Parts: sequence; structure tokens; C-alpha cells
Amino acid sequence: MKLWQKDTNSKKEVEAFTIGRDPEFDIILAPFDVLGSVAHAVMLEEIGLLTSDELATLKKGLKEIYLEIEKGQFRIEEGVEDVHSQVEFLLTQRFGDVGKKLHSGRSRNDQVLVDLKLYYRAALRELVEATAELFSLLQDLSEKHNKDLMPGYTHTQLAMPSSFGLWFGSFAESLTEDMDLLLAAYQLSNKNPLGSAAGYGSSFPLNRSLTTQLLGFADLHHNVINAQNSRGKTEKYISFALSGLSGTLNKLAADICLFMNQHFGFITFPDELTTGSSIMPHKKNPDVFELIRAKTNQIQALPQTIALLLTNMTTGYHRDLQLLKESIFPGMESTLDCIKMTIFMLKEIKVKENILKDPFYKHVFSVEEVNHLVLQGVPFRDAYKKVGYAIEADDFKPDQEKLKHSHEGSIGNLCTKEIKTKMDRKLAAFEFEKMNKALEQLILN
Amino acid sequence: MKLWQKDTNSKKEVEAFTIGRDPEFDIILAPFDVLGSVAHAVMLEEIGLLTSDELATLKKGLKEIYLEIEKGQFRIEEGVEDVHSQVEFLLTQRFGDVGKKLHSGRSRNDQVLVDLKLYYRAALRELVEATAELFSLLQDLSEKHNKDLMPGYTHTQLAMPSSFGLWFGSFAESLTEDMDLLLAAYQLSNKNPLGSAAGYGSSFPLNRSLTTQLLGFADLHHNVINAQNSRGKTEKYISFALSGLSGTLNKLAADICLFMNQHFGFITFPDELTTGSSIMPHKKNPDVFELIRAKTNQIQALPQTIALLLTNMTTGYHRDLQLLKESIFPGMESTLDCIKMTIFMLKEIKVKENILKDPFYKHVFSVEEVNHLVLQGVPFRDAYKKVGYAIEADDFKPDQEKLKHSHEGSIGNLCTKEIKTKMDRKLAAFEFEKMNKALEQLILN
Amino acid sequence: MKLWQKDTNSKKEVEAFTIGRDPEFDIILAPFDVLGSVAHAVMLEEIGLLTSDELATLKKGLKEIYLEIEKGQFRIEEGVEDVHSQVEFLLTQRFGDVGKKLHSGRSRNDQVLVDLKLYYRAALRELVEATAELFSLLQDLSEKHNKDLMPGYTHTQLAMPSSFGLWFGSFAESLTEDMDLLLAAYQLSNKNPLGSAAGYGSSFPLNRSLTTQLLGFADLHHNVINAQNSRGKTEKYISFALSGLSGTLNKLAADICLFMNQHFGFITFPDELTTGSSIMPHKKNPDVFELIRAKTNQIQALPQTIALLLTNMTTGYHRDLQLLKESIFPGMESTLDCIKMTIFMLKEIKVKENILKDPFYKHVFSVEEVNHLVLQGVPFRDAYKKVGYAIEADDFKPDQEKLKHSHEGSIGNLCTKEIKTKMDRKLAAFEFEKMNKALEQLILN
Amino acid sequence: MKLWQKDTNSKKEVEAFTIGRDPEFDIILAPFDVLGSVAHAVMLEEIGLLTSDELATLKKGLKEIYLEIEKGQFRIEEGVEDVHSQVEFLLTQRFGDVGKKLHSGRSRNDQVLVDLKLYYRAALRELVEATAELFSLLQDLSEKHNKDLMPGYTHTQLAMPSSFGLWFGSFAESLTEDMDLLLAAYQLSNKNPLGSAAGYGSSFPLNRSLTTQLLGFADLHHNVINAQNSRGKTEKYISFALSGLSGTLNKLAADICLFMNQHFGFITFPDELTTGSSIMPHKKNPDVFELIRAKTNQIQALPQTIALLLTNMTTGYHRDLQLLKESIFPGMESTLDCIKMTIFMLKEIKVKENILKDPFYKHVFSVEEVNHLVLQGVPFRDAYKKVGYAIEADDFKPDQEKLKHSHEGSIGNLCTKEIKTKMDRKLAAFEFEKMNKALEQLILN
Repeated sequence: MKLWQKDTNSKKEVEAFTIGRDPEFDIILAPFDVLGSVAHAVMLEEIGLLTSDELATLKKGLKEIYLEIEKGQFRIEEGVEDVHSQVEFLLTQRFGDVGKKLHSGRSRNDQVLVDLKLYYRAALRELVEATAELFSLLQDLSEKHNKDLMPGYTHTQLAMPSSFGLWFGSFAESLTEDMDLLLAAYQLSNKNPLGSAAGYGSSFPLNRSLTTQLLGFADLHHNVINAQNSRGKTEKYISFALSGLSGTLNKLAADICLFMNQHFGFITFPDELTTGSSIMPHKKNPDVFELIRAKTNQIQALPQTIALLLTNMTTGYHRDLQLLKESIFPGMESTLDCIKMTIFMLKEIKVKENILKDPFYKHVFSVEEVNHLVLQGVPFRDAYKKVGYAIEADDFKPDQEKLKHSHEGSIGNLCTKEIKTKMDRKLAAFEFEKMNKALEQLILN
Repeated sequence: MKLWQKDTNSKKEVEAFTIGRDPEFDIILAPFDVLGSVAHAVMLEEIGLLTSDELATLKKGLKEIYLEIEKGQFRIEEGVEDVHSQVEFLLTQRFGDVGKKLHSGRSRNDQVLVDLKLYYRAALRELVEATAELFSLLQDLSEKHNKDLMPGYTHTQLAMPSSFGLWFGSFAESLTEDMDLLLAAYQLSNKNPLGSAAGYGSSFPLNRSLTTQLLGFADLHHNVINAQNSRGKTEKYISFALSGLSGTLNKLAADICLFMNQHFGFITFPDELTTGSSIMPHKKNPDVFELIRAKTNQIQALPQTIALLLTNMTTGYHRDLQLLKESIFPGMESTLDCIKMTIFMLKEIKVKENILKDPFYKHVFSVEEVNHLVLQGVPFRDAYKKVGYAIEADDFKPDQEKLKHSHEGSIGNLCTKEIKTKMDRKLAAFEFEKMNKALEQLILN
Repeated sequence: MKLWQKDTNSKKEVEAFTIGRDPEFDIILAPFDVLGSVAHAVMLEEIGLLTSDELATLKKGLKEIYLEIEKGQFRIEEGVEDVHSQVEFLLTQRFGDVGKKLHSGRSRNDQVLVDLKLYYRAALRELVEATAELFSLLQDLSEKHNKDLMPGYTHTQLAMPSSFGLWFGSFAESLTEDMDLLLAAYQLSNKNPLGSAAGYGSSFPLNRSLTTQLLGFADLHHNVINAQNSRGKTEKYISFALSGLSGTLNKLAADICLFMNQHFGFITFPDELTTGSSIMPHKKNPDVFELIRAKTNQIQALPQTIALLLTNMTTGYHRDLQLLKESIFPGMESTLDCIKMTIFMLKEIKVKENILKDPFYKHVFSVEEVNHLVLQGVPFRDAYKKVGYAIEADDFKPDQEKLKHSHEGSIGNLCTKEIKTKMDRKLAAFEFEKMNKALEQLILN
Repeated sequence: MKLWQKDTNSKKEVEAFTIGRDPEFDIILAPFDVLGSVAHAVMLEEIGLLTSDELATLKKGLKEIYLEIEKGQFRIEEGVEDVHSQVEFLLTQRFGDVGKKLHSGRSRNDQVLVDLKLYYRAALRELVEATAELFSLLQDLSEKHNKDLMPGYTHTQLAMPSSFGLWFGSFAESLTEDMDLLLAAYQLSNKNPLGSAAGYGSSFPLNRSLTTQLLGFADLHHNVINAQNSRGKTEKYISFALSGLSGTLNKLAADICLFMNQHFGFITFPDELTTGSSIMPHKKNPDVFELIRAKTNQIQALPQTIALLLTNMTTGYHRDLQLLKESIFPGMESTLDCIKMTIFMLKEIKVKENILKDPFYKHVFSVEEVNHLVLQGVPFRDAYKKVGYAIEADDFKPDQEKLKHSHEGSIGNLCTKEIKTKMDRKLAAFEFEKMNKALEQLILN
């Protein structure tokens, strides 16, 4: 059943091909479709296209459906084209022709657009909150292990003394920076497209500021063509944000896979979190982090998949855009999974102590030793030579106790608080409570 | 001549392979290298590693070199490894051993990092300002052509009435949204990495807040591992920003190439801005926009090239990172070229008038007609049928004079001012004057 | 139930995360797993690790399971780790300990590898055969419309006379070229990895040539590390082949979407194969081809997704490789869908006749006119001037009847047979019958 | 000076933007442009569009220019548009109007196409020959080190005994497989596009088979639209071939970077081939292999850059295609560099001996031990338990002398000859001598 179609029926092959995976995504969009419809109805009444009785009926009906969705009772019936048609169908079935009035001043295009934006906002919020949780855990681990030294590598070669405190803390600060892309994606998602109709606006005197406010959007896409063209662009920005986060998670996973290698042996996890073999007892396969590494690569490929879908395309809706969902819906879910799984694992991580006490690592202290002499007043050139000769004569015995890094962000001064302050400021910028308040008011009143 | 190398010389084949295209990029980095060195010297004096006389000498010498660079007199001499060595070499040649003291508390890694960050800030500023100029031109064109109607397409099919005002304006608003990614990239570039040394900090009591302030950075990468890992991440964020802008430019170019096609004929440019053939007089090839379309595709591929360079890599510097410059330096320049060329061309664009008066387009008014009847009180279903019958009977004559879109962002209400306000707010967020002021003070004092 | 695991159970979170989408892919692999096991069993008997009675029992049991799979009766039971365990579990349940003997001289790694290779061969065969069918249809359409002229475009500008015969034929020849990448992918899939065990071979005296022959492989990966490293590489090559085909399908779809635009109006399809609106009667949305365009873009992104998964990874199995299935299994299916849907649609395509008779197109004949004069003996320069003046004076009336292209591959000489010969030769190179014969013999005997 | 342009001059800004980097690429194409012109001239005479005297003059002139190019004396003069114009300009300057006759029956489009195809063939030949050289070196190293054991890893965890013979040999066999994509790219490059003119053929009775034969092409693109559409497609196929090779080189480089890490210490190179620091004596940075890893990532990004340039584009030439050169020309050169540098380095590689004698590695023999017992008649289950208990009691002492892998492709049976045979067969398939012979004959006669 297509509501606004010509009589001629599409052949079933065409129907199957064009619907694709939409039914599974439509269920996700259902609550947001209802919210968008409530706001649209309120606005239609305000501009005189609905009576206040009609509005009351529609709001009542939409709230009913919203609750059914929340209870998991909503489904798209056989032969109904999509979630939008199902909602309209239910309203019409239950309340008669008033159900069809919702279509005034709205096209399928801006209806889908607003559903997507509302869903993206909600999903990004989940991601942001999970990221904040991972951030806190990393900061805790950084503080907990701030005395546990480990070697630092450049060119995958032993280079300088480092610490687990520094290492965990680096990912914490990296996450604060990933918030910038998340915010950019959120801001683009947080603009109202309603009223753009099929991308060229409407001859009805729509009040777009009203729906903007009702849905808790921070802004609207003013220009209606731009509103339509934000389909694809929004997904592209989200893919950038996911790719940003994935870069941080990927590096953490790559480090862990290397550090679990027996030659390093810096990190372990309880047996039940790794796989192995009873006959190769020292083998602890880091499957979870290998998969996080792989999944974050899939996610980092999303910007390209999306760029290919969009590029060289002219202004206006193209059916191609439908497939964006196949990239971005699973991409958001997979990123969330990776964050949650990283949290789950890191809660159990065990790090090796006293690594640098092993003479194997003594040369990582050579630069420290030179600097130490310099600070005692030895000219740099002489200090350098002295240490060089000692090393050459195999007579270099660094005194690790002297190791003292004091500047901001160094082993001895992790700046955990300063980094926490950054994260708090970033989180505040999302202003999630505004969105929440508006949506609650919309569905409760 | 490598300053801090073992005696054994690399074979020339290795040297040629590893240096690659760095000499051409190093010239670009030269002024920023000097600025970074001035700030580092001031800081060294503040923590007692330089005397105030030594500092005075170094500042004098560095300013000299800065002026030489500005005058185009600076070059990297045969046998000198890179820009950093050349600057140090000049200082030492001119002022003796004090030149070498600049190396204290700094590694090649954080020296390169700070050069790159300073360059990226400057280059992003140029991009932002060019974008703002294009934005203004698009707004002017939007206002100028706000009465010139054109058809709007969905599925590349004639759909609804649109206007050149709406079309130009859509790209203007799109640019305001592209500023969010530019800001995210700018913020990541605007963090001080100095003091991170080889990625694990230094045992000298560096004052990183001081260099942050001297160089006009808004913040520092606190964690030194994170500072090092920002190499690559910064370029990735910039590539996202370039890809964002490119998306907007690509769509504009794609539209123009289509609208210049003779079947459409909506747009022309003066002959000297297109190519053609004297024997095919109506052929006006949109070479410039085809190349903008292509260049913006090259740019949209950068995130992927960079992701491949970075992914699955463990913490710490790897020589792989050197090749980031080959992606991001030309990428920034090419994006700037595309913006400037778009401005250059749009200044001469001519649009066809009265397009929709041609009866060929009459059906794009069918939805308007229905809405018009509805607003006069005809029930939607009846209005729809009436218009449908008229069309079927080939008796549909829309009265274009009745066309009246009034809502925000529609043909009749472009919201040019509201969109301008958004742009102004975005531009202000960069706070370029802070950066400028700091750098001026640093080099002048 | 994991067959070769330590006793400690993975936490259910780890299990859920690591299994991922494997169950859905494992069902696809089931018949190939059985085939690989039959071959392995035959070989084990030949080298004395199974008795002939044991082999007889295993063959009987495996054939039973194969038939159950064919009948759709096979499923992976709750708690069983994967398809390989399920098969082994059934054998052991039905025939006792002999079921476990199949594991000798084989690791999970080479077992999965051989399953994948067998599946890829079969899936590539389906793709090749569908491509051959599309090829034939395009050749038929090319011959059918060899007199139907249309304009040819360069720079999206009207340029020269072309024909539908030439246009359809171009895609047919393009498909013959796409076969080269399909062949490269098939050849890499058609190499036996069995015996490589976990990627470092086995101390059992395996007869790898025997399993190669039994499974109808054209060759084996001799080096066992290389066999293991072919995981990922094989999928990459397949993704290239899919991308090659997708390029051809994407261009065809892009052309059709443009030619269905009302300004062109060159092509139509029956109403039931397009979508539209009763109120916009001339709107025929090319949804199917928009989606083919989009799907072929998703497919063209696969090489990049796979490159990200694989790059910078060291030799040997990594769990990351598991996720290759999520790219390549749906990718092969989607490509097949696109080919089949293109066939489905093209069977109903209608092209406009006598397009070039419209004076709108007259200038596309200007070069022809010059050439015509040259062939009559007029010096080129004079001919060019003459035509140029006529055009300038608006006095250019090309005689389309004179249009005569005779050289190979031109409008008047489509070389359909020569192109058909190429395709036949390419198809023969796959030698599918060898594979089929071997597999039939394996499962029947 | 543009030869076939309207009088109106492009503005210099447009000219600079549209020419881009073509001058540097045109010099590379120059000899191929001359070869294409000789073949075209011979054909024009054969079909009566040139007299034999004119042909003689043109051949003489073209040979002169060819020699000038070979001697490095050829350059594109100020104001001349491109290499094609420069050649025509020289001919006309030296021999008068006959120089212009070369343009008959040819468009700039197919002229560029044939130049590119000829260049790609030559460049691919260089790549194939360098690959063959690397292959031989890897086989030599494999044989030389066939007794040098090393551990094999799965999940980056110690797993099984391996050997340097096996490891070097794996890359040799991988290269034989990479030849398949090189061959596919070569075959697409080895098709004659001449005669396709602007992509829609010519009304002159061109003899395309003749130019095919004269230029030593194995085939022609019959269909002229397909010939034009091969622009882009050819580059895409080449990028796949480069990406294939790069995958092999990347893994080799990644392995080496890891094995040079001090925890592994499996591999070293002479000091002059690595970088280091006199104060960190055990630091040997693998810069060359880090850059090979990075360069092969740049190359693996090419398929995506090219896909973005091409996708969603309709049939026929677009100026966008010009930018393909910026991806594929440097891409081919960079791949060649990486191969040559890998050869250069591997000639000096030193591997550690007796690695597995260190008890650290004893558990990699556990599976061997089980198999050994099984081959002695112990039931698998009992053998497995016995070894497991020994390991648990820390009483496991594998007898490495017993290690005996005998099957094809295993440590004890590297199949070097069989793999060599594969390579020889692949090399023969290119039939380079056919191409060479034809070109020599063309330019000598």
C-alpha cells in the first residue's frame, strides 16, 4: 500500500529491490517519526490548517502510537510501504480522515529528514555519554598507574622512559579532542529540516521556527534546498566523528595487541577475556582488541563509502540517498559497541610492574642522564660525550631513582585535572538537556 | 650534514628515498620554524637554561632569518638535511655555539610538530577567509536573482518551482555549516605540542604554558604522548574539513555542468571563461567546473589516504608520518584554488530569465495549485482531484503570478540576513586576532 | 561449546562480541565445509592417518550432512561455536570418535580458508554467468537499435552523432574487459590452502596435491605462510573485480538517470518499473537505476574498507580477518543483484526514435559535414571555413542521410561478432567445468 | 597557442587553472605521442588521406622529433598548449602545411588516449621486470636461509615453528599472484583506442586494425564509446595492480619493522642503511621500511581516489579525467621506487641464527610434539594429554632435531622450483617482445 502513488503497481521485483533493508531501519525511526508528526500537527493548527479539535485527536493518537512503540508493540504491517505510512494508516484507521491531514505542508522528503535528524541526535548523545565513561576510566587507570614505568618507543624502537600513567592518559586526552568532531556532527544533526518539503519549500505559510522550538532543535536549516542537501552531508559529518573516535580506539587496540605479545608482556587480561589453547599455555590471543582494531577500520572506511554515494551528484533528492542508512546506522552502533567493549576490557586490565628495572631497558635512560648532568651545570656537549663514552664502554648504569619529569603533561605531572576540565567543557557544549526537555514537553503535553 | 646522527653516513640511495619531497615542504615551514624557535628560546631563558645575553643573541639572529625568509632569500643549502638544521646552521655560523643551545629541551619531533601546527593555523585562516568571501558572493547572487525562477528537480526529474535566489542561497548556507569542521580542525591545530620532545616529555623543567602563550595557542596538548599522537590526527581532522568544503563545491560544480548543458541552458559564462570550438558554436565546455568537480574529488579522497597511513599503528613516532605532508599540503592549496576559482567564475555567471514561462515546465506548478485551492478552503482531496483531472485533460494552466512561498527559507523569504548572522558567529569563533597578535608580538619584541 | 579451547569460559560479552555476524555467514559456508572435509579425509586415509573403514564412515556421514544442508535441514545448534564445530559434532554424535579424527593435520585456519575459497569460486561463477547474460542482452539491444541515432556528448555538451546501437554496445564490450579482473579474482580463489594449518604447515606428511586435485583447484598456494596470507588478499582481489563490474553498471545507470530526465527524454520504462505521482504525470523517477548507482558505489568502496582492514599488519593470522566476510559476502550478493536488476529493467527499455531529426541537434553534424567535404576533395581548411560560415549565417542544414561511419566500432560497423568472440574466449578461461566435475565426483563417489 | 580553439582567448586565470600539472606529465608522454602519430600517418596514407610523399615527410619529421626527445632536447615552448600541439607546431614549422594533415581523422581525445596506453604499457613493463627481480632475490634468500628457524605468530602471539626460508619464500609466491592484476592492467592498456576520435568515431574510413598492428597492440577497443570510456577505467585497473603489489610490499615492510624491534631482534641491516643516535646505540630505526609501508599505503589509496573521480559520471569525455594523471603517473613511479628500494635493502639483510634454541620459544613446539607422538602410534587424545601435562609441570623439553615438515610448501620442502615455474609462466603471458618489435619497426622503418 503506497499512499501517494499512481495506481499502477510496481512489479514485485522492483519493490523488493527498492525497499532493501529499510524495514529494519524504519523500526528504529518509528518513535522519531511520531515526535516529528506531533510537532508538525501543532504547527498546522497554529497556522490554521487544522482545527484545535483535530489537533487534539491527532496528538492523542500519536501519543498512543508512541507508547505502543515504546512497549515494542508497533510493527509495519504486511503491504504497508514504510513507517510513515504505517503511522498514518493507524491514525486513519482509528480516527478517520483527520489522519490524512497530517500530510499537509509536508513531503515524504522532509518527514524522513526530520526523523533522521532526531535519531542522529539521540544516537550521538549515547555515543558521547559512552565516550565520557571511557574517558573517566582511562583517567582512573592513568592515576592508578602513574608510578608504573614502561618504555616509550619511536620507530617501534626503544627510545625513552614512559609510564602507564602517561599512556592511559594519552587516550583520555585524545578523547577530549574527538569530542570536537562529535560536536560538529551533533550541530549539523541539531537543525530542523521540516518545512523544506521536497527540497523546494511549500506554498503553505508554515511556521518553521515553531517546529524548531517544539522539537528542541538549536537551529533550522533556513534555506530549503540546503535542508534537503543536508541529507548525506549530515551522515558524512557523523562518519567523520565516528572515524575520529575510531582512530583513538584503533591505536589503543593496536598498542594492546603488541603489548600482549610475549616479547613485550606488558599487559594481561583474565583468561576468560582472551582465547588460547591448553597446549600453548602462554598464548593469550587478544581477540577482542583485534576485532576492535578491525571494526574501527570498518568505521574509518565509512567517510569514503559515503563520499562515493554523494559525489558528483546534483542538487535535489536522489533515491541513492536511501542507502546512507546502511552505512551510518550500523556504523553508529558498531562504534558504540567498540567503546563499551573497550570499557568492559579495560576494567580488567593488568599491567606489569617494574618493567624498566630490567637492564634490557637501560639505554632508554641515556638522554635523561645527559639532561641530568646539564642541569647540574655540565655543558651539554661534555655531558653528551660522557654518557656516550659510558655507553660505549658498557659502563652505563642509569639511576632510575633520579628520573624526574616535572613539566606539564609529563610522567611526573599528568595534568589529570586540567584534562578533566577540558572534557567537562566539551560535554557542556552539547546542551543535551535542552533537547530532552523539549521532547518531553512535546510528548507529555 | 645531519646534526644529531651517528658518524656512519647513510648511503645516498637511502638518503634520497627518505628525504623524498621534504625540501619543497620545508621551505613552506621555514617561517614557522623560526617562530617556534623564538618562543622556545624565550622559555629556555625563563627556566635558566639560557642567559639573557644568549637569548638576546638568538632572538636577533632568528629575526634576521625570519626577514630573509620573508624576502625570499632563505634556502636550504646543499648537504644540509632540513629546514631545522639550516636555521641552526645559520645561527651557529653567525653567532657561534649559542646556536646549538636551542636544541636543549626540544627534540626534532616536537620541533616539527610545532612548525606544522603553526603552518596549519595560518593556512586554515586563509581557507576560512576565502570561504567567507565566496559566502558573500553567493549571498549577493542569491539576492540579485531572488525573482528568477527555475525548476527544482528530484530524482533528476522536474518537480517543483525553485529560484536562482534559492539555489545560490543554498550554497551560502552550506558554507556556514562547513565552518564547523574547519573550526574543529583549527582547534586541534591550535594546541601547543612543544615540550613533548620525542613524545615522552623531557627531564628539563620546561614551561609549556609559556610557549603556549607566546605562540598564541589557545591550549596545549597536555599529555606528551597525546601531543605526539596528534601528528596524523591533526592532518586527519584537516582532511575532514577540506572534504566538507569540497562537498559543497562539488555539488555546485556538478549543478553548473548540468545547467550549462544545452538541454537545460540555464547558465552561461563569457566565452573567455569556457572552451569551445568554432565549428560547434553552441558548445561551451565547462572545463573549470569539471576540474573543480574533479579536484574536490581528489580532496575528498584525502581522509582515506590519511586513514590508511595511520591505521593499525602503535603509539609513538613512525617515519610513516612524514608522508602526511604529501597529502595535506597540496590538499589545502588545492582547496583554496577551488574556492578562489569558484569566486572568479561566479562573478561572471549569467542566468537565464523567465525559464518557467515556457509551457514545458507547467507541471512543476501542480502541487502549488492544489495547495492554493486548499488555502481557499477546498478540501485537499477535492483539490487534488480537480488538479489531477485538469492535467489529465491537458487543461492545466497554472497562474505563475499566484506563486507565493512565504515561510522561512523559501523562494519568497530567503532569510539572507539570518544566514549572514550564522556566518558572522562562526567566523568570530576562530579568534584569529589572538593568534596574530601573539605572533606579531613574538617577532617584533 | 568450543572444541579446542581452554576450560575457562569466555564471558558471554566477549563471546557475543567476537562471534559477531558469523552465524549468518557460516550457513553459507556449510556445504563447502563438508566438501573440504571429504577431501581432507580421503587424503588422511591415503597417508595412513585414517583406516579405509574410518574413511568410509566419514564419507557416509559427510554426505548425509551435505544432503541435509541442501534440503535446508542443517542448522548450527545453540551453544555450538561455528559451522565447523557443528559438522564435527554431528559426525561424532552419529559415528563416535572417528568424527574427531578429521581434525588431524588441519587447523581451524586452513579449514576456514578452504571453505572460503570454495565459496568464492562458486559465487564468482554465478557472477560471471549473470554478467554473460547481461552481455548478451546488451548485444541484442545494440543490434536492435543500430539505426536509432542519438547525440553523443563530451563535457556534457552536445558533440557528435551517436546511436543507441553504439551506446548499448559500449557496455557490452566494457563487460568483456571486466572479465579480466573476475578471472584474476577467480584464479586467486582457485588455489588450495589446505595443509597450511595455522599458517606454518604441519609435521604430518600431508599430500596437498591430492586435496588440490580432489577439490578441483587449478593450483595450490605452495608456501604455507603465503596460503595463510591469501586470507584478505583473496577478498581484496574479489573486491577489485566487483569494483570493476560496478564501474560499468554505475555508468550505465548514470546515463539512464540522465536520459530519463524530461529535457532529454531519450529513454522510458513501463510505469510499473518506475515511480511517479498522479499529480505530476510526466515524472517518472528512475528509482531502480538510482539505487543501482548507489549500490555500485557501496561496492566500489569495498577495496578501501578491505585495504584498511589489512594494511600495516604483520604476517600470520589476526582475528581482524574475520570481518572480511562482512564486506565481501554482501558485496558479492549485491553485485549479483545489480546485474540481475539491470537485466530485468533493460528487457523493458524503450528508446526514443528519430531524435536527431529535431533541428535542435543540427550542430552535432558539423564535423561530419567538414569530413564529408574533405572526402570529396575539398582541402580541410576550406571545408572547415565553409561549414563555419554556414553555421555562423545560421544556414547550416546537415544532410543526415549522408551520415556514414564505416570503420570498426563506429555507428555503421558495430563489430558485434568480434566483441562476442572476445567474451566467449574470456568465459572459456575460467574452466568452470573442471571445478564442477571434481566436486561432483568428490561428493558422489 | 591553442590549435583548434575559438579566437576568444581564455583568461590567464582559467588557463593556469585548467592546465595544472599537465606540462610535467606531457614531457613523459612526448615519445609516445610521436609513435602514435607515425602509426596514424601510415594509416592515413593507406586510406588515401595522405600521399606517399606527405607520409614520407611526416615520418622523417616525426623520427627527428623522437630522437630529440630521446636526447632530452625536446621541450614545450612558452605559449604552446601541450605536447600534441608542440609536435604539430614543430612539424609545421619545419615542413609546412603537411604538419596539420596529421589531425585528420583524429581528435585530441583519442590522441591522448593512445599516448596514455602506450605509456602505461611501457611503465607496466618496467614494474613487471622490477617485480621479477625482487622475486628472484626473495627466492635466493629463501633458499639461503632455509635452515634458519624463527617463530611463527598468530594473533601476534608465538604459535608455531617457522623459518626464514618459509618467510622469504612467502613473499616470492605472493608476487607471482600479484602478476595476475598486473596482467589484467596490461591487457586493458594493450588495446588500441585510435580511431575513436571524440568518443563517437569518425566519418573517415579509418583502418583501425592497421594502427593496432603498427603499434603492437594485442587488440583494439572495438566500440568507440567504450574506447573513450576506457579512459579512467584503464587507470582504475592499473591502480588495482599497484595496490596488489603494494599489499605484498606493505606486509614485508611491516614484518621487518617489527622484527627489527629490540624485543624481537630477528633482523638487522648495516648501519648506513638505518638511522640511529650515538647516544642510544641499540636504536636502529627502520626508516626505509617505515617509508615503504607509508608509500604503499598512499598507493593503496589510489583506487579510491580514482573511483571518486569517475563515479556517477555519464558516458563521454569530461575534463575531470585529466586529473587521473596526477594519481597514476606518480603512483606507478612510487611503486617502482618501493620495489627497487626493497631490493636494495634486502641485498644487505642479516638474519639472526638459532633463534628457537632459546628456551623462551619452547612452547612453539608443543603441537609438533603431539603430532610426533601420533605418528608413532599414540592416539591423538593421549598424545595431547601427555604433552599438556608436561607443559603444565614445566617439564616440556621439545627435541628440535625431531622437527620434520615434509609436505609441499612447508619448512622442509619450500617448493622453490615450483614457485619459480609459476613466475616464468606469468611473465611469458605479457608477450612484451611483441610490443617491442612493433614499436622498433615503426620508428626504424
